[in-house]
Amino acid sequence: MVSEQRTAVVISVESLNAFCLRVLGKLGVSSEDARTTTEVLVTTDTWGVFTHGTKLLAGYAKRLQGGGLRVDCSPRVAIEGPAWAIVDGQSTLGQVASTFAMKCAIEKARKCGVAYVGVRNSCHFGAAGYYAWLAARENMIGLAMANDVPSVAAPGSRGAVIGSNPIAYAIPAGDRDPLLLDISIATVAGGRVYARSKRGESIPEGWLIGPDGRPTTDGGLYPGQASLAPMSGHKGYGIGLLIESLSGVITGAAVTKQVGSWLFDDPALPTDHGAAFIVIDHQQMMQAPVFAQRMAALIDEIHQSPVADSSDRILMPGEREWEHRRRVLKNGISLPEDVIGKLEEVATEVGIDLPLR
Amino acid sequence: MVSEQRTAVVISVESLNAFCLRVLGKLGVSSEDARTTTEVLVTTDTWGVFTHGTKLLAGYAKRLQGGGLRVDCSPRVAIEGPAWAIVDGQSTLGQVASTFAMKCAIEKARKCGVAYVGVRNSCHFGAAGYYAWLAARENMIGLAMANDVPSVAAPGSRGAVIGSNPIAYAIPAGDRDPLLLDISIATVAGGRVYARSKRGESIPEGWLIGPDGRPTTDGGLYPGQASLAPMSGHKGYGIGLLIESLSGVITGAAVTKQVGSWLFDDPALPTDHGAAFIVIDHQQMMQAPVFAQRMAALIDEIHQSPVADSSDRILMPGEREWEHRRRVLKNGISLPEDVIGKLEEVATEVGIDLPLR
Repeated sequence: MVSEQRTAVVISVESLNAFCLRVLGKLGVSSEDARTTTEVLVTTDTWGVFTHGTKLLAGYAKRLQGGGLRVDCSPRVAIEGPAWAIVDGQSTLGQVASTFAMKCAIEKARKCGVAYVGVRNSCHFGAAGYYAWLAARENMIGLAMANDVPSVAAPGSRGAVIGSNPIAYAIPAGDRDPLLLDISIATVAGGRVYARSKRGESIPEGWLIGPDGRPTTDGGLYPGQASLAPMSGHKGYGIGLLIESLSGVITGAAVTKQVGSWLFDDPALPTDHGAAFIVIDHQQMMQAPVFAQRMAALIDEIHQSPVADSSDRILMPGEREWEHRRRVLKNGISLPEDVIGKLEEVATEVGIDLPLR
Repeated sequence: MVSEQRTAVVISVESLNAFCLRVLGKLGVSSEDARTTTEVLVTTDTWGVFTHGTKLLAGYAKRLQGGGLRVDCSPRVAIEGPAWAIVDGQSTLGQVASTFAMKCAIEKARKCGVAYVGVRNSCHFGAAGYYAWLAARENMIGLAMANDVPSVAAPGSRGAVIGSNPIAYAIPAGDRDPLLLDISIATVAGGRVYARSKRGESIPEGWLIGPDGRPTTDGGLYPGQASLAPMSGHKGYGIGLLIESLSGVITGAAVTKQVGSWLFDDPALPTDHGAAFIVIDHQQMMQAPVFAQRMAALIDEIHQSPVADSSDRILMPGEREWEHRRRVLKNGISLPEDVIGKLEEVATEVGIDLPLR
């Protein structure tokens, strides 16, 4: 998930936090919602997942200014039972609606052992892994997923039929780092196609489906004439449809083509993304120390497995991201050039300076 | 998922059912458990998923005779809450323990909207999709998953570190066929590697990891010296660890290497597989006709999307399997030679005839 861009500028996590809060404040976002959104975006940067961190702020700013993202509303529970809820995001920032929904799922799982909370009228929510981690921080297992504008082909389709539909999970493991996986159902993210195209490199076979429905290596065709290949063909496509059903269909959100593009569509319009959050409070099923010991044994077993000739070590999901986070909390974040560019853009837009260490 | 074998013999679904019931009865399985197990195996054959249907009976017979699978026990709820349970399979047939657990999850979801049921002391459960379909038959969304003996490599590992850990879902769609996906986290199933090797064909790049941890096309190395490649690298490996945690870690079942091989290990020993079932009763969240209409619209949209030059149509997950099932319920099942061979083996073992139409 780590960005392929060259790094250029180092900024402390505190400064980046303060900058985001100021930007969101200037855009009329309440201080509570600004804190929520900032934490999602900056945490994502601390993991080194720069495609989904503070880089997104400039795009969100346009929608906040356009009115497609509302600052005068709050997400609310539309309908609920003891172990589930459907949340109406009310066109607030995706981070605000999704944090609200995941916290709701955590509270319900604390009572019932398991909970499902779906969301409609949301927007792009950034990194799914952040919401999963909210559950792991409460010593529960969390899953987070969302639908999006179609960008991924089905086996046998000529164009995109489904979004890259991210799915993430986090599993706490006692004093070890939580397992943390955050993936899209495409073979690779569209951002990596852009990055390679921009550098003039060809795209490896298997990433893109061209305008005739056959594989292509011409990154310039994406996204207008090419779509992303689903991971492992029918498997990624099939998982994408599960995510679409849980995030979009059940919740009453927009589905596939009805979802608005948070980046390209009229910023005056809501995007009506859907999302879904599932939490399991395993401590009700197995004593926490026993579960932690069993997770640690699994982690140790895999870490101690024989390593391939071509490799140094076998990573657990999220291991690279946790190491990145510890490093940058101490030394500051080396922001890639493209992120700096976007932060400068939004700083200019709202009339403040970007503080660089 | 349809078998690559040549087909040879046609048998009616009724005859195949009756044969399985007789075999299981001869092996001391109660009539209720025999009916349950037969329904799982024969339904799987009706989908054309012959790798996971009645072909498995011969292997199960050995463990039933050896005592590793018990006929004098029944699965029971070990611990439970309103929306969850952990089931002790008591070393009964995986089909018996898993059907019991999924039915428990369906009942709990009917009350709570969502339910998680984990299982320990189970065995190989056949096709995960069958259990997901049990939920869809009750007009709920079902997920089913299980762990297994390691056969899949991690990115950077030299050998297998995790099972092929199947995961399936079924989503009802009103008067349309339910969406039904049943996949392993390997790029392709081990059975397809065997089938190609047996025919003397080389294995496509990307399917297998050799003894040095690099890709290999030599199918003869599997499973002793080669392992299956995880689908989309870290993505399939990561999903595998989620399945391992929900099926094996929480439930108290065996984890990774501790899981016994239902096929190769001493048939006197239990395999202690774990499994997990999740059910969402979406009718509590959205009126059933509205949900059905929204699923139908999604299906229609994808069916009507432009088709690739190389393709006739775009399939929904399970579409091929439902078509196969309708055909064989009418015309009988064309069983592949390898299945016939296994059925003849078990027929001889228990001293009955295999009735062929």
